Amino acid sequence: MPALDRGLALGDGVFRTLRVRSGRALNWSWHWARLTADCEKLRLPAPDEATLRSEVARVAPGDAVVKATITRGEAGRGYAAPTAVRTTRIVSAHPPPEHPAEWAEAGVRVRRCHLVLAQQPRLAGAKTLNRLENVLARSEWDDPAIAEGLLADAEGRVIEGTMSNLFIAAGGRVFTPDLGRCGVIGAQRERVRELLRHEKVHCEERNLRWTDVLAAGEIFLTNSLIGVWAVRQVDERAYAPGPIAARVRELIERDDAAA
Amino acid sequence: MPALDRGLALGDGVFRTLRVRSGRALNWSWHWARLTADCEKLRLPAPDEATLRSEVARVAPGDAVVKATITRGEAGRGYAAPTAVRTTRIVSAHPPPEHPAEWAEAGVRVRRCHLVLAQQPRLAGAKTLNRLENVLARSEWDDPAIAEGLLADAEGRVIEGTMSNLFIAAGGRVFTPDLGRCGVIGAQRERVRELLRHEKVHCEERNLRWTDVLAAGEIFLTNSLIGVWAVRQVDERAYAPGPIAARVRELIERDDAAA
Repeated sequence: MPALDRGLALGDGVFRTLRVRSGRALNWSWHWARLTADCEKLRLPAPDEATLRSEVARVAPGDAVVKATITRGEAGRGYAAPTAVRTTRIVSAHPPPEHPAEWAEAGVRVRRCHLVLAQQPRLAGAKTLNRLENVLARSEWDDPAIAEGLLADAEGRVIEGTMSNLFIAAGGRVFTPDLGRCGVIGAQRERVRELLRHEKVHCEERNLRWTDVLAAGEIFLTNSLIGVWAVRQVDERAYAPGPIAARVRELIERDDAAA
Repeated sequence: MPALDRGLALGDGVFRTLRVRSGRALNWSWHWARLTADCEKLRLPAPDEATLRSEVARVAPGDAVVKATITRGEAGRGYAAPTAVRTTRIVSAHPPPEHPAEWAEAGVRVRRCHLVLAQQPRLAGAKTLNRLENVLARSEWDDPAIAEGLLADAEGRVIEGTMSNLFIAAGGRVFTPDLGRCGVIGAQRERVRELLRHEKVHCEERNLRWTDVLAAGEIFLTNSLIGVWAVRQVDERAYAPGPIAARVRELIERDDAAA
């Protein structure tokens, strides 16, 4: 990487992290949809889809996590973007994360983070290279038994996990936080919403408070690497294993197998 | 730069931009003070001061702009920082910016930006590598006659320029925005406050509104490369050249010469 790349200098870029299994990039269509939406949000030229897919295939012929990063490329100092942008594209393969097997089976313990997410609607939803809030939030704990931390904004709206999206089930319906002010719209979140729609399960974006989270019968987390984690505990509040996270896991597995 | 550096992956780092003239790094003490404060804010090990100074001297033996970047170094994927951090340090020299000579003499035209700064007290003041708000704000105009854009937060507090700090003079006193919620504390801003204190000019950090800016007799901008720019126009509001910006310029030049 050139040291003058705007990705490094300013965080002027976006990325997506996806799972490749036996050479197949899982949930590709949502990853591609979100990547192009994020590029548009930053007015960054999106890559060619076929080129990107072939690069993913080249770095990850078997099982891997692949990270694709697009930056506004090399430039001089200063905030003004060059008139002729030549984006930088980095596609790298990494080993799949090793989480305890019981997390997927029995659910995870999570904590409420102290960090309060800032509200920036112009960047909300996008997975940009400006991720210091996530870094600060993740640094709040080092207990390996805690799988994730939940984040809220200054108005007490619960938004997401440091690396995952949140769903809650209450009264036969499913809710996920509105991400119009802050947070990252995960490709897995979008797929889960779509799969639930196909199942005729009502899933609504909504402003959620801690009281909603604590009152919910079931809560779960999603991202492209973990799939779905049921939450069995948020700080002192315990949750019984619920049917909806289990159902979502089946739907994801079926969708991955069919792709 | 390794592509897996956390500076690129997450914007997990800080930087400072300084002016070197005839091999002397101007305003070094404030640059160093701010850089270490920013490192502390991110719990990033600060470099050794003598080492950094010698690197600056090596890349800029004559006249130059030097940028010093400290990142949390190379790591795997994910937000959790490695327990043993090896920071990356990048020190690069660039040509001094070429602004029209009359900007320093007759003052500059600036605009009010549409972008609203998000409030994140945990990062406020620090010059981190998360600079997308500045990028978005700077992309709002391409009229070369406009020297800078001013930014406010969602509560209407005017905070800073996209690349500079703001001062306003009213009733014989000088004010500069409080940067406890957002904004970058420039090394030049801190020096100007100190120089004004030595001159027994009252200079106070305060929440300022657009009405304060428009009502002020004089406003000016500072950063380490421009020094001081008097503002002669904010959108439609014109300002007469004022004595305080001129005085601040003299104080800075004297301080630079004495260093």
